[in-house]
Amino acid sequence: MDFSSKLLENAVYEMSQLPGIGKRTALRLVLHLLKQPKGRTDKLALALQDLRNTVKFCNNCHNISDTELCEICINPKRDATLVCVVEDIRDVMAIENTGQYRGLYHVLGGKISPMEGVGPQDLTITSLVHKAKNGEVKELIFALSSTMEGDTTNFYIYKQLEGLGVSTTTIARGIAVGDELEYADEVTLGRSILNRIPFEASLKAN
Amino acid sequence: MDFSSKLLENAVYEMSQLPGIGKRTALRLVLHLLKQPKGRTDKLALALQDLRNTVKFCNNCHNISDTELCEICINPKRDATLVCVVEDIRDVMAIENTGQYRGLYHVLGGKISPMEGVGPQDLTITSLVHKAKNGEVKELIFALSSTMEGDTTNFYIYKQLEGLGVSTTTIARGIAVGDELEYADEVTLGRSILNRIPFEASLKAN
Repeated sequence: MDFSSKLLENAVYEMSQLPGIGKRTALRLVLHLLKQPKGRTDKLALALQDLRNTVKFCNNCHNISDTELCEICINPKRDATLVCVVEDIRDVMAIENTGQYRGLYHVLGGKISPMEGVGPQDLTITSLVHKAKNGEVKELIFALSSTMEGDTTNFYIYKQLEGLGVSTTTIARGIAVGDELEYADEVTLGRSILNRIPFEASLKAN
Repeated sequence: MDFSSKLLENAVYEMSQLPGIGKRTALRLVLHLLKQPKGRTDKLALALQDLRNTVKFCNNCHNISDTELCEICINPKRDATLVCVVEDIRDVMAIENTGQYRGLYHVLGGKISPMEGVGPQDLTITSLVHKAKNGEVKELIFALSSTMEGDTTNFYIYKQLEGLGVSTTTIARGIAVGDELEYADEVTLGRSILNRIPFEASLKAN
């Protein structure tokens, strides 16, 4: 693209460094900001810098937090013996939104992926194992995505926990509520039949 | 969404104010910045603020420019008697990329749209008419999108220029180069037949 202004070119370049934002979209976003009052741009810039410069992560679960321990970890009503292992904080938000979970979380910060150069030492696995060794945890729920990387990570953690007396579970995979059977993929449908649950239990879940 | 951090919530909110960026996308973008070195966020914030605070528009064509007059307007090789009327600076960039145009531009800053509350006084029409009255312009090329708003704007300007001896043209509408006739919409196909050009002329265009 041929920009008439170096300032514009620079702003579009920086914006297009964000994931999924191409040059054209970046230009559209930047031109939008130009049409808005100056305060809009200042607020956006400040909000991003504020977050980036003062971001904290919960010392216990590694969720993003404005305090040393996040609101979930300090909540006395939550069951601290139950820990749900997730990839990143978006998963925490998704599970929190269901209103169905009363335990704590452990945010790994990714999955083990040799292809992308992510090893166990890049994740918060050590602190998870440490928690388990302290006897704080009774049950660990694996809620990583069911990809090869997710399965590898689950298995790696599972091996680390051997002999610590922590029971491990994984979230149920199956046909989404409201989905038609005929459109489900075979792996999901297969698993949902193998891992069928007593009908009475399904009534309780609603 | 239930954020564990006010800073995060604020950053996501500001990001989601951009057009086409929903809350989920905003969260993805913000979390991406968190995983990057601090410098990335600072550069983005600074680039946006720099542009917004010091942006200038060319005094002649209203294109974004770092100087009083943009590079196109001060280029002595460009034909100043030929002016292409466009909606915004993205159109300037698109036409410049073709390398086919040697005249100047006039950026209106939008289209007349009573529905969106945009009247002639919100656009740079006065300065365009002023240019035409000074006798600087011989031909005006309308290159607005062919919507009702675009057509209205074209006609409004056309009426303003009556009696000034400026010839007005509009860019050719027709089947895109490489497109199959059978998939073209009827209006476009109809226009491309009505506005057919001599075959020899089409040879020159390539």
